[in-house]
Amino acid sequence: MASNTCRWGILGAANIARKNWKAIRLAENAILTAVASREPSRAKAWIDACQSECPFPTAPTACGYDDLLKRPDVDAVYIPLPTGIRREWVVKAASAGKHILCEKPCGPNANDLRAMLDACKAKGVQFMDGVMFMHGKRLPLLRSVLDDNETVGQLRRITSQFSFAAGDDFLKNNIRVSSSMEPLGCLGDLGWYNIRFALWAMKYAMPTKVSGRLLTEHASGVPLEFSGELFWPNGVSSSYYCSFNTELQQWAHISGTKGSIAVRDFVLPYYGCESEFVADRPVFNVKGTSYHWESHPKRFAVNEYSDGAPDAQETNMIRTFSNLVLSGKPDPMWGDIALKTQVVLDACLRSARSDGGMVTLQ
Amino acid sequence: MASNTCRWGILGAANIARKNWKAIRLAENAILTAVASREPSRAKAWIDACQSECPFPTAPTACGYDDLLKRPDVDAVYIPLPTGIRREWVVKAASAGKHILCEKPCGPNANDLRAMLDACKAKGVQFMDGVMFMHGKRLPLLRSVLDDNETVGQLRRITSQFSFAAGDDFLKNNIRVSSSMEPLGCLGDLGWYNIRFALWAMKYAMPTKVSGRLLTEHASGVPLEFSGELFWPNGVSSSYYCSFNTELQQWAHISGTKGSIAVRDFVLPYYGCESEFVADRPVFNVKGTSYHWESHPKRFAVNEYSDGAPDAQETNMIRTFSNLVLSGKPDPMWGDIALKTQVVLDACLRSARSDGGMVTLQ
Repeated sequence: MASNTCRWGILGAANIARKNWKAIRLAENAILTAVASREPSRAKAWIDACQSECPFPTAPTACGYDDLLKRPDVDAVYIPLPTGIRREWVVKAASAGKHILCEKPCGPNANDLRAMLDACKAKGVQFMDGVMFMHGKRLPLLRSVLDDNETVGQLRRITSQFSFAAGDDFLKNNIRVSSSMEPLGCLGDLGWYNIRFALWAMKYAMPTKVSGRLLTEHASGVPLEFSGELFWPNGVSSSYYCSFNTELQQWAHISGTKGSIAVRDFVLPYYGCESEFVADRPVFNVKGTSYHWESHPKRFAVNEYSDGAPDAQETNMIRTFSNLVLSGKPDPMWGDIALKTQVVLDACLRSARSDGGMVTLQ
Repeated sequence: MASNTCRWGILGAANIARKNWKAIRLAENAILTAVASREPSRAKAWIDACQSECPFPTAPTACGYDDLLKRPDVDAVYIPLPTGIRREWVVKAASAGKHILCEKPCGPNANDLRAMLDACKAKGVQFMDGVMFMHGKRLPLLRSVLDDNETVGQLRRITSQFSFAAGDDFLKNNIRVSSSMEPLGCLGDLGWYNIRFALWAMKYAMPTKVSGRLLTEHASGVPLEFSGELFWPNGVSSSYYCSFNTELQQWAHISGTKGSIAVRDFVLPYYGCESEFVADRPVFNVKGTSYHWESHPKRFAVNEYSDGAPDAQETNMIRTFSNLVLSGKPDPMWGDIALKTQVVLDACLRSARSDGGMVTLQ
């Protein structure tokens, strides 16, 4: 391995992988050496399209999945393959000694993910899920404000909604409504972020109970619209909603004993804006027969684009992952939080399949 | 009755009634003639305090409850008495031929409210609950935007949160945590608004199923922190959260197939601000290896204070109610929507008392 550059392969020439092509290109400590597809000719066409727009000095090699995993010039693989077949390839990649950046939802269920993590542990390779917002500049700032014990105080409620209106074609043909390829539908594609955000806010303390509601289901049985609620001891709770039926929204709200914080774009900061959040602690004023509430909003912002691109979160993700690979010290935290996310998600779906009853987590 | 002025009495010299003293003073078609307390001396002190700050040309008369209901110079009564004893006095007031503006929650349960409404119907008097936001200038504007079939499209999800941090003294001594006086706690005091807002957004179509979670309970058994979810056919849903443990928030969010609308202060517009809401329909742009989301917020606002006071909602409520009284044609809609609110609230609490199971509404 080159001592200061992590060499990447992409396992699956998917549309979703284009953004990570660019992120690998932008990260100074990463290079893309190979892209695999079921048929190498498809990988070649995909490489040509990306290369024409955002070129590497040397174009990556097109190959098949197994060939890519045998290549000595690939240290890490990004795996955007469908969830339904991901376990097989994650285990194969780990067995081949490759570090793994895995698209979410990691698996169709937590048991599959446990098998993947075991395979990674056995070979001492890094595992991470592809949740980009973990790598933005906003979360560290948000953490420091949440921890100041003044702005929000003790957390009481975390609420988030993430949706987009998929449209007829998507609902007929997209892989994300296929029960074999993406059995978790909107819950896996969007709810993964809602759940992760709540776990992040709670410093990864696991809820002790959860519930879920399947609001709309595809004919295939895949969730199209879903709501869930997570419960921690002492009444702290989180509610989320995700949907393929509802126009794009991606907001989160955290409230506590002293105030609250609103994030209007927790998944991907809106283009052209600073990455921000707004805290508020309105005051109730009563004086005789008059009363009113005053709002005192306070804005916090970071310039997510200071390194030049709206792809900053993805680029940071690749950068961070590459550094973990180059350090030779995989960090098990990333696999742990992926598993926690999947365990909560599984339990929400189990609840929804039994009419919303409370599910207790061990 | 004076032909252009509704003559009011207030049954209960409560703190909460002070704002309606002022509203009656500000409404051109209303006058306050009497205020009752269990002991007339208390009513007298209360009248003196209000009168010194916001005087009527002639001070209202202090009297006892029964005496007030016998007075021929009282057309309408505002009843802020505790929920636990409200039914008795609403029925007495209706029997005495008085029109009734009733503080919320109207009753400890829907059966009590039905008895109140029956008494009003029998005597042909107006009934209305004291939900001020129904009378602001914002809702008509919001309705027209919701109905434009462009901004939000078909409704899919209505979310709202209303809370304030009550503090230790409140949690020890306030009537709102007394199981006999205010058995519905935060659900009656705050959740009533959440539920009403969702019903309003849905043009009062009743949800077919609801669920509720008692997140924190007072030692008295009264809800301190509560979440509920309402379900309509075709997957349309609403989630709400209300709490005495969480600092002041009062926001609502409506999302649909084409966009969403955020209201940051749906209960009482923040002082010094125009009464506003913000619509958004973010756009997802993908181009090759680049992608981003663009936000296109659009602000709608009305000047709630154009008639000179931050009490505009309350003043409009008194104005509207007085006009109904003066017209001689009570409008049953107001009683109907109060009952719908209470039926949904009851069912949410029933669900919460049975561990959050789904409750089907007839």
